[in-house]
Amino acid sequence: MTGTPEQQVASLQAHYLPDVGAWLRDALADSAPDINRLLRYHMGWEDAEGSPTPSEGGKALRPLLCLTACELAGGDWRRALPAAAALELVHNFSLVHDDIQDRDVTRRGRETLWSVWGVPAALSGGNAMRVIADRTLAKLESSGLPPAAVMRASAELNQRYLEMIEGQYLDMAFEQRERVTVAEYLDMIGRKTGALFESAMFLGALVANEDPGQAHAFGACGRRIGVAFQVRDDYLGVWGDRAKTLKPLTDIQRKKKSLPLVYLLEAGSEEDRAWLQEAHRDDEVSGPNVKRILLLLDRLGARGYVTRTAEACASEAVALAGALGLPAGRQRTLEAIAAYCVQRDR
Amino acid sequence: MTGTPEQQVASLQAHYLPDVGAWLRDALADSAPDINRLLRYHMGWEDAEGSPTPSEGGKALRPLLCLTACELAGGDWRRALPAAAALELVHNFSLVHDDIQDRDVTRRGRETLWSVWGVPAALSGGNAMRVIADRTLAKLESSGLPPAAVMRASAELNQRYLEMIEGQYLDMAFEQRERVTVAEYLDMIGRKTGALFESAMFLGALVANEDPGQAHAFGACGRRIGVAFQVRDDYLGVWGDRAKTLKPLTDIQRKKKSLPLVYLLEAGSEEDRAWLQEAHRDDEVSGPNVKRILLLLDRLGARGYVTRTAEACASEAVALAGALGLPAGRQRTLEAIAAYCVQRDR
Repeated sequence: MTGTPEQQVASLQAHYLPDVGAWLRDALADSAPDINRLLRYHMGWEDAEGSPTPSEGGKALRPLLCLTACELAGGDWRRALPAAAALELVHNFSLVHDDIQDRDVTRRGRETLWSVWGVPAALSGGNAMRVIADRTLAKLESSGLPPAAVMRASAELNQRYLEMIEGQYLDMAFEQRERVTVAEYLDMIGRKTGALFESAMFLGALVANEDPGQAHAFGACGRRIGVAFQVRDDYLGVWGDRAKTLKPLTDIQRKKKSLPLVYLLEAGSEEDRAWLQEAHRDDEVSGPNVKRILLLLDRLGARGYVTRTAEACASEAVALAGALGLPAGRQRTLEAIAAYCVQRDR
Repeated sequence: MTGTPEQQVASLQAHYLPDVGAWLRDALADSAPDINRLLRYHMGWEDAEGSPTPSEGGKALRPLLCLTACELAGGDWRRALPAAAALELVHNFSLVHDDIQDRDVTRRGRETLWSVWGVPAALSGGNAMRVIADRTLAKLESSGLPPAAVMRASAELNQRYLEMIEGQYLDMAFEQRERVTVAEYLDMIGRKTGALFESAMFLGALVANEDPGQAHAFGACGRRIGVAFQVRDDYLGVWGDRAKTLKPLTDIQRKKKSLPLVYLLEAGSEEDRAWLQEAHRDDEVSGPNVKRILLLLDRLGARGYVTRTAEACASEAVALAGALGLPAGRQRTLEAIAAYCVQRDR
């Protein structure tokens, strides 16, 4: 593969995602129509009235990493499709519930599920999505994976999923706290975002050769990519082009304790912190205060710090991939994905 | 076993529940302390400050049915303990989320999880409970069940769990509708409550002899017991002694479309229905209107109707159990459980 990281990821998406999409549609088709309507809306396939919508589709990075890992480990990626679809469903389950928890009214430029159908219905919808994910993962058996390996896959997803819930819980708890250290923050996003990326590469490798030891090595690489991805997300949440990120408010306006603000709390002076606390008394940070926070971040070199942190995580991922002993060409595919995660602008 | 159905169930509880309790505590101990605190509170083991509370323990009917089914099918009930604990965790997961959806502020005479810690935290807590349930079920492998049978068990629980979510969704949807037929209502509670009872007996029998056909026959019996249980719950929600049910409001005050009201909508006159719709305009039904609804229910013979419906479901369960070809003594244990479900007053 050649081209920029973005082009390489786009060609991986073109290669894998039509099959992933077919698996996702099959997975959702096989359950109660009432709830399915909500899920099809959330997936961006239909509008609230049930009419098909032209969907760009998401980045689907977790399926992409899963199928790539399967190929890198010498397997047939088609056998990993149930895992790839399950990961995307678990991810979407978490989005549905996160939006309820964070009271976010839009996502990807559309109204969130709870803001269209209400919290109770969206809560059920998210739960259904998660059950369908489990059911889809179990279809690895039809890929010829022996039951003991399917159970291993299921136990792994389960464990990472519990980490993800704990990460989300910590994230919410941090919002209530005055101080959060960078170390605490990085641990939290390792759970909240890294864990599912870890699963993705673990499952792909496991399907390839049923060797849990090797699968864990792939998983460790995936987790670093996940953290790099999240840190870049934090960057975009503050300095991204909102026409591309489709986010109505920046994380500064929302008072979100993502890495830039956590860094400010750690690197800023006692005076800066006291002032920030004042500025955070309002529900939404005022225009002049947003400007001042951005100036403060610039003065502290936060932009460079956040970028370097993402790049360091991506480098660690690449180093971990290097230790997997892959042929050079395959190694470069992973490098491109890691590079994409820290360079993307949407 | 001898005595009244209540005494027989109490002696089954004394027999099984200490071990179930130990499994539940182990299951929860092995995850993040932050979230665990919430779960221990919900289970009634601790107060909101984390101090141990003297807990009466719930009825634990799902574990009870699972372990009983295992013994009836000729198995060693101790091998089914992971399934019994998983069922209780799934049940409690559903209570945590249902309380959020229904905005119920008390349960079993205590504040609900969301009313103590807020909706976002309780939502995560419920999700964690469900993951821990899955992980606990997977421990059936340590009971010597082969991986293929564990997967079968997991697929079954998953399927019934999806039905349960659909049932809860339908229940909420019915609250928005003016008319709901008795047939629709019974189908809904078959999903919402019956499905997990079905799982309970299915899983117990599956552990006993790994015969999915026989397990399904046990499951069908469990589902009828679940419906009988729910119909009795509906009875108690209207005519029960609130000192025993610990419910702050009756279902009449809450406008809950449980069987008595659904029956009224079906058996009442056009005039009754129009009046009821008027009486339901307020958030909570007024005292004089509650009295009038109760009179109306009496006039239509609703009490007898609801009781007969519960008894008919219990009889079906007993008939299904009869077809299992159990020895007479064992058959009587199931009869006692079914009888308890429709006679209980709390």
